Amino acid sequence: MAGRSTGLKLYVDLLSQPARAVTIFCRVNGIEAEEIYVQVANGDCRTEEFKQINSACKVPTIVDDGFKLHESHAILRYLATTRNVADHWYPQDPERRALIDSVLDWHHLNLRYNAFLIIVHRVISVLPGIKKGIYPEHNEAVAEEAKVGLNRALEYVETVLLNGPNEFLENQKEVSIADLSLVCEIKQLLWLESSEQEELLGSRKRIQAWLEAVEKATNPQFNEVHSKLYGMAKHLQDGRKSKEEASQ
Amino acid sequence: MAGRSTGLKLYVDLLSQPARAVTIFCRVNGIEAEEIYVQVANGDCRTEEFKQINSACKVPTIVDDGFKLHESHAILRYLATTRNVADHWYPQDPERRALIDSVLDWHHLNLRYNAFLIIVHRVISVLPGIKKGIYPEHNEAVAEEAKVGLNRALEYVETVLLNGPNEFLENQKEVSIADLSLVCEIKQLLWLESSEQEELLGSRKRIQAWLEAVEKATNPQFNEVHSKLYGMAKHLQDGRKSKEEASQ
Repeated sequence: MAGRSTGLKLYVDLLSQPARAVTIFCRVNGIEAEEIYVQVANGDCRTEEFKQINSACKVPTIVDDGFKLHESHAILRYLATTRNVADHWYPQDPERRALIDSVLDWHHLNLRYNAFLIIVHRVISVLPGIKKGIYPEHNEAVAEEAKVGLNRALEYVETVLLNGPNEFLENQKEVSIADLSLVCEIKQLLWLESSEQEELLGSRKRIQAWLEAVEKATNPQFNEVHSKLYGMAKHLQDGRKSKEEASQ
Repeated sequence: MAGRSTGLKLYVDLLSQPARAVTIFCRVNGIEAEEIYVQVANGDCRTEEFKQINSACKVPTIVDDGFKLHESHAILRYLATTRNVADHWYPQDPERRALIDSVLDWHHLNLRYNAFLIIVHRVISVLPGIKKGIYPEHNEAVAEEAKVGLNRALEYVETVLLNGPNEFLENQKEVSIADLSLVCEIKQLLWLESSEQEELLGSRKRIQAWLEAVEKATNPQFNEVHSKLYGMAKHLQDGRKSKEEASQ
């Protein structure tokens, strides 16, 4: 085993949606892993040292007994099939598995793409003291376009992916890796102004019930892993309130 | 079996990259399927009839003995695991499979996203007689930005994904569903002006060798399925030449 480190290492930033999904998955399923925290906003993913682990400079990345892997969905599939994990996370039944895969594939260019852009252009790029060159420069037009796409993606989740009597995506009775990935993405929207969150999610009752069901199925780990995100959300809302009060 | 149609139906448009990948996969592996041609540019995916099959209005979509599935990567995984298909397409070995999954996941927001946008904004949206409302309106700035992203994605394929002694992605000895998906995307670039193709691919020798290897591994079906795309590429190049000659 010379030169090959042992155990599972998880390179994550708990402010990153896909990194949270992988972290929750490991903690909920008792998968022993060393969590190594990397701050994306500080450029930690762009160091020469990190590039040796993942030249795509992204989190989450895992190293499992020397085997390097990135892309959160690939990691979730890999861990669900190599660890002792309940079947519902990534069912062996070919049709059920295919439906989960279809949701995971759809996610990238729909929910992920638009939610990422709206958060970057409405929140991250205007944070005071944000390090230059890590995220795109603020562009309100991009945020507006992303909002249109995000509304369309959320409507698809509400009316198609949650269109069954059971609580979880694609009418599954128990939580899957697709639920976890999509919910971690939607939780990032807590960084938006309250009125905008209300516009996007207020009338979508199935999504609201499903968010609760996924949290319930993965707590207390879900909330533990989200505590940094929740703290940042509170900080942002407090800042907006102070600014509003000062301008009155 | 009342109400459940039998056999595998493949809804495809051979001018669509992911639809070609699924069609080639079926033909090469002798998977019996009825190919049903849908013209995306004509709005065939937006009819009420098609929405019954796939409410996301996209090709490829399959119906397998009544089981409806869309998203090309999910379809490729499903067919590779439910049909009698050689292991190399989607290896059972967890590490090799995870690397293929990682490439497939990376594809969406990198190669797919940028190649799609450059083709839409440089070629499709300026075609005479193109039906309105199916594709975004022509936007040169989007095409330019997509070109930057596409160059970055191609460089990643050249230097990271093809960085091994073996011919295929992630140093595999034989072709996988990831090779097929990415190569079908890159082939769409034949619709760009020759000088732009040269800029994007001319100096990338590993990509060139890999394109040949994937074609060789999947011919004659690869070329058969691409004949409509090649015909359109020739038509576009002839049109540009006539226009150039007329302006001299």
